[in-house]
Amino acid sequence: MKALNLQNGVLTIRKDHSLAQPNAGEVLLQIRLAGICGTDLALLNGYAGFNGVPGHEFVAEVVAIGAGVDEGLEGRRVVAEINQWCGQSNRCEQCARKHYSHCLNRRVIGIRDHQGCFAEYLVVKASSLHVIPDSVNDRQAIFTEPLAAAFRIVEQLESNHYQDVMLVGAGRLGQLIARVMVLQKKKLSVVVRHERQRQLLQGLPLTCIDESMVKAQTVDVAIDASGHHSGLMLALDAVRPQGICVMKSSYPEPMNIDLTKLVIDEVELIGSRCGPFPRAIEALDSGLIETESLIDRTYSIDDYQAAFALAQQKGSMKVLIKPH
Amino acid sequence: MKALNLQNGVLTIRKDHSLAQPNAGEVLLQIRLAGICGTDLALLNGYAGFNGVPGHEFVAEVVAIGAGVDEGLEGRRVVAEINQWCGQSNRCEQCARKHYSHCLNRRVIGIRDHQGCFAEYLVVKASSLHVIPDSVNDRQAIFTEPLAAAFRIVEQLESNHYQDVMLVGAGRLGQLIARVMVLQKKKLSVVVRHERQRQLLQGLPLTCIDESMVKAQTVDVAIDASGHHSGLMLALDAVRPQGICVMKSSYPEPMNIDLTKLVIDEVELIGSRCGPFPRAIEALDSGLIETESLIDRTYSIDDYQAAFALAQQKGSMKVLIKPH
Repeated sequence: MKALNLQNGVLTIRKDHSLAQPNAGEVLLQIRLAGICGTDLALLNGYAGFNGVPGHEFVAEVVAIGAGVDEGLEGRRVVAEINQWCGQSNRCEQCARKHYSHCLNRRVIGIRDHQGCFAEYLVVKASSLHVIPDSVNDRQAIFTEPLAAAFRIVEQLESNHYQDVMLVGAGRLGQLIARVMVLQKKKLSVVVRHERQRQLLQGLPLTCIDESMVKAQTVDVAIDASGHHSGLMLALDAVRPQGICVMKSSYPEPMNIDLTKLVIDEVELIGSRCGPFPRAIEALDSGLIETESLIDRTYSIDDYQAAFALAQQKGSMKVLIKPH
Repeated sequence: MKALNLQNGVLTIRKDHSLAQPNAGEVLLQIRLAGICGTDLALLNGYAGFNGVPGHEFVAEVVAIGAGVDEGLEGRRVVAEINQWCGQSNRCEQCARKHYSHCLNRRVIGIRDHQGCFAEYLVVKASSLHVIPDSVNDRQAIFTEPLAAAFRIVEQLESNHYQDVMLVGAGRLGQLIARVMVLQKKKLSVVVRHERQRQLLQGLPLTCIDESMVKAQTVDVAIDASGHHSGLMLALDAVRPQGICVMKSSYPEPMNIDLTKLVIDEVELIGSRCGPFPRAIEALDSGLIETESLIDRTYSIDDYQAAFALAQQKGSMKVLIKPH
């Protein structure tokens, strides 16, 4: 099969990549459409030391099933959770707690020890699948994974009272976080850096601001989705005493933080990663989260170089790859 | 009056320090007994840039009251919250929320813009006082402030389910945190560095361990009360995915942290500072928290140099100063 292949930071296309068959509990997926994410760009720069087929945002069709898998899945349009957990309660405390996305032995689609979706086919665990309703089209469905990651913030904040939220970063993920936060009826300000980011947020009940307008110690919750240390610093500066600062970025390098401020102001610093797929699918299905405007262009897998070049441009949003 | 005086890191005694009189809403306290805290030692090394009379752990008697203060307070034995808040809801969002210890305009007894308790007398806001019951003696009462700080951790964790707790550091504050945590019926392990710390924890339902026994990603909550970067690193290492790491130390310098681990494991890093005085007084009154064994020695204020020298020794616990 055709597949993109990352080796030591160099991305190429292979036309003869081996095609795996599903074992017991697994399914073979035919990828219908895939999206390029910021993490994919980071992988190209060495993040996570990944070699293999990258890609983890996709919608696919189940074309074969392994032993023990529900036959009703065959032919269905699906997405899959990127964390492929071990499920062995006796050797994994996280699976025992059903915190599957934190499985201590997890393989992660296109990121760690697992083939990704920039390929014609992909084998995953059947238990990681979510069926996509007919009312959600492929171009919406590819947003399931990043939208779930945005909803993860809401889950993590659920037990807190908060009203004023500031979001730093209005890129691919930031746009989704903004849409999710206004759904929660929070008072949201978004620090934008590019005119296009501002345009894409127009019409939403939020305020776009630039960095110079951030007031120290004012917001209940500050979210950094900028991917930069400077974005986290801005978020930490804006959060009020006893407020919460959410890190929704992978920071490439260790950073120097003055923890005394966190102690004196009793600020909570929370890391946030993968989220609830069902909630994301529901939101797409309800039409309450608009995503079409976030798609820049769709490329054939053969044109992967142009696709990645566009995705790497400042201010670019979602670039799609069609493997078939 | 007699008072210790800190100027640019040099501590001296003054016998002619001016004696303030209470304004409206204030009281004049005669200090009965005061304790030396780790923060006092840090102040000597330049922490918070404080100049003036240090000291914030004390028990005192109300000897004069300003206009508008409840006359029933006269002659009572009291402690005072160290954060002297502005209370002006129209100019302080934190006071408006009744988060007085985070008052944006606060002065802090013996730490920021406010005289401390290593003196014969001290003027504070009447609203910051807590009366000490007769059943709690002076040697217990001086633990109110640090014990409240230990209970603050319990308050901050209240909305979480947690069972396995690891505490790094069994010094002055660590000893109190350990006592508070076993009261919550948590499964507690304490990383101890000195034999004396271990002895003081004997008989409590907890496990003393040394650093080499810490297992990565295992505990629900890890608390650093070591005052060292290395202690925080150990705590971050021990906490399980989605666990909570509490910083109960002032770290003297900014530190380099790999935030990617916090993001990937969705760890919560929480700063923790001042706590509920009433809860601490109740705990002392109930006899459930034993503190007498933590007192090393009491010095007259004239012998302050010997007192601070003892407090600075490794493994030393609470050193008391009697200003009268």
